[in-house]
Amino acid sequence: MNAVLEAVRRERDAILDGLFRFLALPSVSALSVHKADVDRTAAFLADALREAGFADARVEPTAGHPLVVASSVVDPLLPTVLFYGHYDVQPVDPEDRWTTPPFAPAIRDGRIYARGASDDKGPVWMHLAVFRAYRDAWGRLPLNVKVLIEGEEEIGSPHLEPYLAAHRHELAADAVLISDTTMLGPDRPAITVGLRGLAALEVRVRGPKSDLHSGLYGGIVHNPLQALVRLLATLHDADGRVAVPGFYDDVRPLPPSERAEIAALAPAADALRAELGVPALFGEAGFTPLERNWARPTLELNGLFGGFQGEGIKTVIPAEAGAKLSARLVPDQDPERILDLVEDHLRRHAPPGVVLDLRRFDAGRPYLAPADHPAIRAAARALEAAFGRPAAFIRMGGSIPIVEPFRRHLGAPIVLMGLGLTTDNIHAPDEHFDLAIFDRGLEAIVRAYAELADALAPAAGQTGADR
Amino acid sequence: MNAVLEAVRRERDAILDGLFRFLALPSVSALSVHKADVDRTAAFLADALREAGFADARVEPTAGHPLVVASSVVDPLLPTVLFYGHYDVQPVDPEDRWTTPPFAPAIRDGRIYARGASDDKGPVWMHLAVFRAYRDAWGRLPLNVKVLIEGEEEIGSPHLEPYLAAHRHELAADAVLISDTTMLGPDRPAITVGLRGLAALEVRVRGPKSDLHSGLYGGIVHNPLQALVRLLATLHDADGRVAVPGFYDDVRPLPPSERAEIAALAPAADALRAELGVPALFGEAGFTPLERNWARPTLELNGLFGGFQGEGIKTVIPAEAGAKLSARLVPDQDPERILDLVEDHLRRHAPPGVVLDLRRFDAGRPYLAPADHPAIRAAARALEAAFGRPAAFIRMGGSIPIVEPFRRHLGAPIVLMGLGLTTDNIHAPDEHFDLAIFDRGLEAIVRAYAELADALAPAAGQTGADR
Repeated sequence: MNAVLEAVRRERDAILDGLFRFLALPSVSALSVHKADVDRTAAFLADALREAGFADARVEPTAGHPLVVASSVVDPLLPTVLFYGHYDVQPVDPEDRWTTPPFAPAIRDGRIYARGASDDKGPVWMHLAVFRAYRDAWGRLPLNVKVLIEGEEEIGSPHLEPYLAAHRHELAADAVLISDTTMLGPDRPAITVGLRGLAALEVRVRGPKSDLHSGLYGGIVHNPLQALVRLLATLHDADGRVAVPGFYDDVRPLPPSERAEIAALAPAADALRAELGVPALFGEAGFTPLERNWARPTLELNGLFGGFQGEGIKTVIPAEAGAKLSARLVPDQDPERILDLVEDHLRRHAPPGVVLDLRRFDAGRPYLAPADHPAIRAAARALEAAFGRPAAFIRMGGSIPIVEPFRRHLGAPIVLMGLGLTTDNIHAPDEHFDLAIFDRGLEAIVRAYAELADALAPAAGQTGADR
Repeated sequence: MNAVLEAVRRERDAILDGLFRFLALPSVSALSVHKADVDRTAAFLADALREAGFADARVEPTAGHPLVVASSVVDPLLPTVLFYGHYDVQPVDPEDRWTTPPFAPAIRDGRIYARGASDDKGPVWMHLAVFRAYRDAWGRLPLNVKVLIEGEEEIGSPHLEPYLAAHRHELAADAVLISDTTMLGPDRPAITVGLRGLAALEVRVRGPKSDLHSGLYGGIVHNPLQALVRLLATLHDADGRVAVPGFYDDVRPLPPSERAEIAALAPAADALRAELGVPALFGEAGFTPLERNWARPTLELNGLFGGFQGEGIKTVIPAEAGAKLSARLVPDQDPERILDLVEDHLRRHAPPGVVLDLRRFDAGRPYLAPADHPAIRAAARALEAAFGRPAAFIRMGGSIPIVEPFRRHLGAPIVLMGLGLTTDNIHAPDEHFDLAIFDRGLEAIVRAYAELADALAPAAGQTGADR
């Protein structure tokens, strides 16, 4: 394995150079104006996989953005790992808040700044670099590797699950390895064993058939902005608890043992408050901030729009107003049932004088991993060796909606070996990725494939991990 | 006077042609990107006034957008009318909802379509055309005329009142004539004797120092969008009544006689509902829609912004969210006191975990005219002669914040001889002005100056109106 570690160290500048080219491609999956960029990024990745030794690497079209698929069967008797990642990124607005342009990667203060640097292009590129290093140093990978990289993760992976279902034999693996989660700190590695689910919708309130002058019509019609505000204010209690009836019905309570573990890992409230720049932390009463984020569901507004947004004032009653909402879910909440409950609640509270339009977006189930599975323990050993500190087993407030379908369709354990930090500004301006993690992370990934080869081998002494 | 009426009829195409050039200038006062357009429009108007015989017509700079000022003293013994209008227009967004571009005037279905066609460039241009017709037909106006046309009406006239105060002797007049209000219908002339006041502010709710991922931070901080919604929902009761304590304290009750007059003028609720395209009318309980619009105060949201507004979903907790609000006021509410009350209310209800930023915009007092003043009766006769039907004396839900300062500084009655229709889509896409009103309105304006010369003359038998 030392030869492989030497290879990634030797090629570090070339790896970084390739990552910059990857980051420069504006593969924003949510915006149709970027469709050609998304396609170009998929082709770029397939080329990179071929260069890393995956002769069959290819772009697989879907009804939406394409998948990039590849496999390298070293020996049918060796275990198989499926690596999953995503090459699409979030929109960049507000673009004027970026210090350097989001698609012009730049290094400052020991970090790579670019949209996607942390979520998820940086980690994806590191896996590809490791595949290539194994090929360069050993001529082959230490086990069979299948690769599936999608372009719709940021829009809820609408076409991945059907693909998984249809190709479940072709994708069969002993473990699924994903690097799209976070560590606890730059030198505190972690494996995520719990993810929240996601359910999202858009609410539009339509009033008059066209915008009206608020002097000439104020007092005559219901202002859609006010109707919207009134409606949305019914979604939460004053203490931050979701007020939609039934919302918490299926929430699995946190066992006292896990509450204690979470308390041990929790950052100091003062430090968190200062880091985020808020006057006070806030959320559902009766739970700590980390419990709320890891193990309690939330219902968040993600956008509000309607009327005049420019400088100064415009005395208008707009024809419509709208909001984007998303719920983060925990076991055993079902996204479709939650959306049913939220929609019912909104319809029941629909203000008079306006019409409600509801539209659902992507949904993903929450996930809890078997933390003692050999594959997860193998990744933990690799992280400990690379970072010099034991890996923590954590939950995460975010969602990777596709994780639960991987488990359901492939029946394999999912190893969430995250390399990001919660401070990476993912989904926000100035997203970045730590260069120190880049270096130690490459070592962790090299070690992880070797450890997985070893841990998943049907019989000891047969695998590449022994070399 | 027949010679003057003949002159406007003969020159009709040239007048319309000039109006189109005026409408093509994008004099949007609210947007700094249009500063040069606003200046160009002022210069264009000063030229037009010089061509209409006002040798001293000039652009007067202010700390904001310039005024256009002119005067024509025919004879110091004749009465004097001050004509006021505004050459600035509202922003045009959403621009994609215009059938033809807002600054490319077009005639369709007997209407002139353009931003400002009705509010207020069309009526301003008609007065200028009448001045010119008097000069062409008679060599002079029937009385002394002073002209004051501003470029900041749509942003609350921040620099007009100081100008009025400083130039009150130079602007002294026996009446102020303004055409920036509406008729009751294309053949139902009206003089507005009551205007609502205006008070506006912007609310910003600031939370974390930068946008956050709603998975990684949802449940930890107060989402500024949710804090904003919660805060704004406290401004009204469920029945549409403003819930700010003290808001209605100074409202002068409607006398039963005026309630009866308003009831007689009110459109059928069904027709109004259909015209506006709403499922139901809505507003403060206990009052009819027209009472609410003419004689009751309102507090309206004019804009909401924050977070993601594009296609699809983006799971973000934005760093801030905001809203634009404006109140329409009736006698004897004071705008500054109302803003104090609204700001106190907002501060008292400020949600935890966020910081509130409040910013005041323009404010204008409500106005009630002396409906039996000879100048108002003179204008009513002119309208009746031109439209063949008696002018109604109405209130209006809108505001012309500058009207009340005219009364206060000049001590003259204000004659609101409106030529617009409530259906003109002012402040909205597809603003338009009726061509039939254009023609009959020109006649009404010709007659109005003659009637005013007569009605305001110190002794009968001395004025141009007798010719």
